[in-house]
This record gives sequence, C-alpha cells and structure tokens, in this order.
Amino acid sequence: VKEGELVFPNEPVVRVEGNIIETQLAETLLLNLLNFESLIATKASRIRQAAGDRTLIDFGFRRAHGPGGVQASKAAISGGIDSTSNVLSAFRYGLESSGTMAHSWVQSFEDEITAFRAFAEIYPDHCILLVDTFDTLNSGLPNAVEIGLELRRKGHELLGIRLDSGDLGHLSKKSREMLDRAGLTEVRIIASNQLDEYVIQDLLRESAPIDAFGVGTSLITGQDTGALDGIYKLCSINGKPTLKKSENPAKVTLPGIKKLIRFFSGEGYFLADGIALEEETEVTDFYDPGNPGSSIYLDGYHAETLLEKVMDQGSLAGGMSPPEKVAAYSRERMRALPAELKYLTEPHNYRTGISRKLLNLKTELLEN
Amino acid sequence: VKEGELVFPNEPVVRVEGNIIETQLAETLLLNLLNFESLIATKASRIRQAAGDRTLIDFGFRRAHGPGGVQASKAAISGGIDSTSNVLSAFRYGLESSGTMAHSWVQSFEDEITAFRAFAEIYPDHCILLVDTFDTLNSGLPNAVEIGLELRRKGHELLGIRLDSGDLGHLSKKSREMLDRAGLTEVRIIASNQLDEYVIQDLLRESAPIDAFGVGTSLITGQDTGALDGIYKLCSINGKPTLKKSENPAKVTLPGIKKLIRFFSGEGYFLADGIALEEETEVTDFYDPGNPGSSIYLDGYHAETLLEKVMDQGSLAGGMSPPEKVAAYSRERMRALPAELKYLTEPHNYRTGISRKLLNLKTELLEN
Repeated sequence: VKEGELVFPNEPVVRVEGNIIETQLAETLLLNLLNFESLIATKASRIRQAAGDRTLIDFGFRRAHGPGGVQASKAAISGGIDSTSNVLSAFRYGLESSGTMAHSWVQSFEDEITAFRAFAEIYPDHCILLVDTFDTLNSGLPNAVEIGLELRRKGHELLGIRLDSGDLGHLSKKSREMLDRAGLTEVRIIASNQLDEYVIQDLLRESAPIDAFGVGTSLITGQDTGALDGIYKLCSINGKPTLKKSENPAKVTLPGIKKLIRFFSGEGYFLADGIALEEETEVTDFYDPGNPGSSIYLDGYHAETLLEKVMDQGSLAGGMSPPEKVAAYSRERMRALPAELKYLTEPHNYRTGISRKLLNLKTELLEN
Repeated sequence: VKEGELVFPNEPVVRVEGNIIETQLAETLLLNLLNFESLIATKASRIRQAAGDRTLIDFGFRRAHGPGGVQASKAAISGGIDSTSNVLSAFRYGLESSGTMAHSWVQSFEDEITAFRAFAEIYPDHCILLVDTFDTLNSGLPNAVEIGLELRRKGHELLGIRLDSGDLGHLSKKSREMLDRAGLTEVRIIASNQLDEYVIQDLLRESAPIDAFGVGTSLITGQDTGALDGIYKLCSINGKPTLKKSENPAKVTLPGIKKLIRFFSGEGYFLADGIALEEETEVTDFYDPGNPGSSIYLDGYHAETLLEKVMDQGSLAGGMSPPEKVAAYSRERMRALPAELKYLTEPHNYRTGISRKLLNLKTELLEN
C-alpha cells in the first residue's frame, strides 16, 4: 500500500490528511460519529426552534439505538436541549440530568396521594408529580394540589406536575386553572408523550400553558430521517486531485484540497456557503455545479473560512469542546440563520456553490 | 422504598420479577436493548423475506447510531442477514465478516486495471471488484473481465463484482451478459446503494441477476419506523394485580402475572397468540380487550407457552444464545408464520386476545 498525502472530503465539512492506511482507518468511525451526532443535534435544533424558550428534556434512552443513546443525549444538548434523563450520559459528558417519577412509583403505593407524599418527603425542593396514572383531572391534579399546599406549609414549593398522556393542550389548560385557583401559580407544567417539533408547535399555537417538554423517541432516533448520508471520498493523492465519477451528476465528488467559505449579509445573517480550492485567495463568484450557468456574486460581503484543525499528528488540537460550549455556539449561529431557512416545513434552500476554478478542475477531470 | 415481588410486563414478552429497586434498575436498559434489537432483527427479517435465498450483507455502520451499530449488526444477523462489514461486531459476537473494496482503493492507483490487479494479487481467492468508480459498463466491467481471466490462468477464480450506483437492474443484466460471454459464469454479482426490502423486491421481480445485496442505512437504523415503542409497566405488587389506567383504552395495561400462549393450525402454522393469567390451566377462548364481544375459540389446537427464563437470581439461565442459533430459530419460526402475515405492504393482522379471566380482572380493576 502506498503512502503519501491524502485528503478525503466530499464537501469539506471534514478534511482528513494522512497516508492511506491512516485515512482509511478513520473513515468508518468518522462517518458513524459525524452522521449520527449531526442527525441528533439537527433534530434537537428543530425541536428548540419549535419550543422557543420553554425547557426541553431528553427522555429518549429507552427507545435509543443501544449504547448510541448515550452519545445521542450529548448531541441533543449540543443542538439545543436543556437536560437529559440519561444519567450515564450526564455523568460521562457533564450534562445536566433531569427527570420526574415513574408510573410504577405511583402504582407501588396503596394510593396516589400516599405515593405523591412519599416522593415529596424525599425531594421537597425538586418535586415533580406524574399525574396521569389513574385520572389526570379527577385524581392526579387534586392530589398534586394537596401535596403542593402541604409542601408550602413546610416552607417548600412544589416544582411541577407532569402530564404524560391524553390531550396535552386541554389538560395543561385545565391543570393551570386548578393550580392557579389553589394559589400554586409557580408550579410548572411538564408535558411528554410522543412529542416532536410539530406537536410542540401545535401545542404552543393553541397557547397550551406548558413550561417544559420531555421529548423521547423522535429526538433520540432523529425521526423521520433516521440517518444522515454523509460520505467520505478520496479527493487528492500525492498532491494530484482526483474524483469519483457517477452517472448521477449529484454524486460526482469535488476534486482537490478545498476550503469552505461562508458569506454574511450586512445585517450579519448567513448569505451563502461556497467551496473553493485551498490555494484560492479572492473568490467572489460561486457556481451551481449542476447548472454552471447559474451563479452567485458575493463581492464585498464579509466572509469567513469555516474549517478548523481538530486533530494534528494524532493529538487533539485545541481540546474537546464541552457540549454546553457547542450548544452556546449553535444557539448563536442559529440566530444568524435567516428565518425562512428555519421553517419546520418547506424551508427555503440555502444558497451554495463552488468556485470557478473548482468547477473548471472538476470539468477537466470528468472529461479525461 | 418497599420490597417485595414485582412483575413488570405489559404484554408478557418479558417478565421481570424482583424487589422494586432491582426491577427499576433493569427498566431502561431492558427497554433500550429489546426495543432496539427487535427493531433491527425485524427489519432484517423483512429484507430476508424480499431477498429469498440471495446472500445479504450488512453494510450499515457508517450510518448507524454510534456504537449502537455494533449491536445492530448482531441483531441483523439474528434476523436473517448473512454477514456484516462491521469487523468489531463480527469479532465481538462471532459473526461472519464480509466486504469488498472502497472507491478510494481504485482512486489511489494510477488507473482502474492496476487497482484491480493489485487487489487480485492480495486476495486471489476472495476477490470482489467494485466496478463503478469511473464507468461501470465501459471501464469497470471490461477491466473486471480481464482480471477474471488473469486469475483463471493462475488457477484462481474471480469471486464477484460489485455494483454500487446507477440502475442496478439494467447494470446487473448487462454485467451478467459480459461476464458470461467471457466464460466467467460463476462470478457473482453483488449490488448495493440505498437498498431496502422494497427495492430488492422490485429488482428480483424484474429478474435482476443479482446474487448478493449489501444493505446499509435502512437496515442498521430500522427505517422507516426507526424505533419500537415497547414499554415496561408494573402489573403486580406483593401478589396484588395492578394496572395503569389511560383515557386511551389501548394504553391501559394488563394486570397480574401472566403467560403468553401460541396456538398452531393443523398444518403447523401460527394461528393466534393469547395472554392469560399465570395460574390459568385450560384456556380456549381469547377476547379482544378493546371489543370484548369479539372472541376466538381455539379448543383442540396445539398450544405452546412462550416465556422462557433467561435470568435467575442474577445469573444467566441456560447461557446466551449465539446469533447464528437465534437466526436458525427465527428462520424456522418465520416458516410457520402464514404467508399473508409476511406481506411487506398491508400484511393481515395476526389474531391476538386475552383470556376471559384476565379480561374480568382488568374490568374489575378499571371499575375501582
């Protein structure tokens, strides 16, 4: 097997240089990590878009793909979820852990009020009561109100109630009324049960007074997509650009060592991303590789190059970013993404292209 | 926290007995394992249904959910896939590993024929050539034929070619013709690229001469479902049956310690599954819990109870079943599942029900 400089990007989101054995060994693991964690972080970001500033909790591990769920919780928090019920993930990655009680807690006592009272004794300042084991409005809520008033008499406050079935919009409104009538105006309402960004959007559109959402299956498995199709392709060998041809023009890879450039509007919003060859200095025009007649002219706009070195000679360059730092970065960047690109259904397409030189190199290699 | 015998089935596919801390600690891990591995094994079984006796290879790790992919490959083989490209999974679980070459192998040589020849020298008896890096029919196939004839002159046989893009039906037919014309009639054709049970069914319906399918994303992520919604509920405490109520009748759990009984037709096919209380001896009628007027009468049919003890006092009872043993069992049981339940689209519903005694117990607890 030959040695030499190799570069394996398709779109240079990740660029790997090394001899062929090193770069091949990295392929499967990198694809697995990046495809999976990007999928979950993207789903988390969509759910965050829908939920606004409500609290979001990852409840997904029991439906996650084996131990992948431990990583998924980290990716979920990187993408905008606040905390996780996955205690191993919280321990391993320093995440905030959070949860309520199980139906089995309630069922394992002689009645609901006894179960609630036992829980409140253990967690007087972090007590969230699951109110749907028997009958949400006729049993769970009255019992929760009673415990809330008992806690207050002892100098504590009930933290919240959790709705886990039924019409969450209706039940949250009725619950809010019952709690407020008892003076428990600060008790939070947490909702869960097959939630995703669309259900959350609908609930908030009907002004459901829900303060926190527990999101499970759809978050932790990245539904409905379930997988990102990132690939890893050889694009330069010993300094010589190479590409993979395909009968499908969209699957022809981009040759050469490349960089990724992002342009910003005067107001600081993302305007377009373009791919150029590493050695290019001034790039102002980007072309659609599938339709080279169509181009974007970006002269004068502020630009950033996006690739950062994360590994150098087998060592981490700059250290690992903890999930909360990634989350803060992602939050800031999401604000710079134009609103029409964040629509949950039918978002506009982001403008992307490749430089003239890269287009010419690709055409030349395809014609050989 | 109280101690005592607890049983946590919903439908008694898994029954867990122990004190409440033990049974709660097992909850999340058991749900994660059983939901996930059942999902992947079921998907594998569907792909096997479509593929008949063709060889099936798991190619999915780069799209799998992190380390969950290692378990997924095991579950895929339990469900009917023959081998996996995931070498860690193969090593860990004793599975057959299998794979071809990468496009980067071909691109890292000066031309395709040199790349093919170098591969054939290393693997003269296990040589599968990936023929779509440049042009499948005009470059890949002629070069593969040349290598096949070279190998034969040296006393070896080319094992196969792999198609990884384009119209797999058309390309496989043309490839078969070209190989046969050169006398390479035993060279196998392997196809991959976004395959699932539906694409495989279509390819075989048009008589595509494909001998083996590499299946990736859809298998390893269990698309389109992506998750199984198994749950874990308390149904008996200190010998007292309990259930979780719900406004949604389908979500009311079944109380008490139960068993699962399967009935067989005279021809040995599965006829119906029923759930009864553990202590019931003669059960011949099963009722639809959502519609108790509707019942199935099964007197005289051969019946089996399905639960087996797998853990006893913290130790494995009977040892772990290796994946190939699970696969053989699954193959045998799938033969006993009537054809109309195996339709890939719109399968008939399998008949299920609960015993009269269990129905009565449930009704009684719901009325309290």
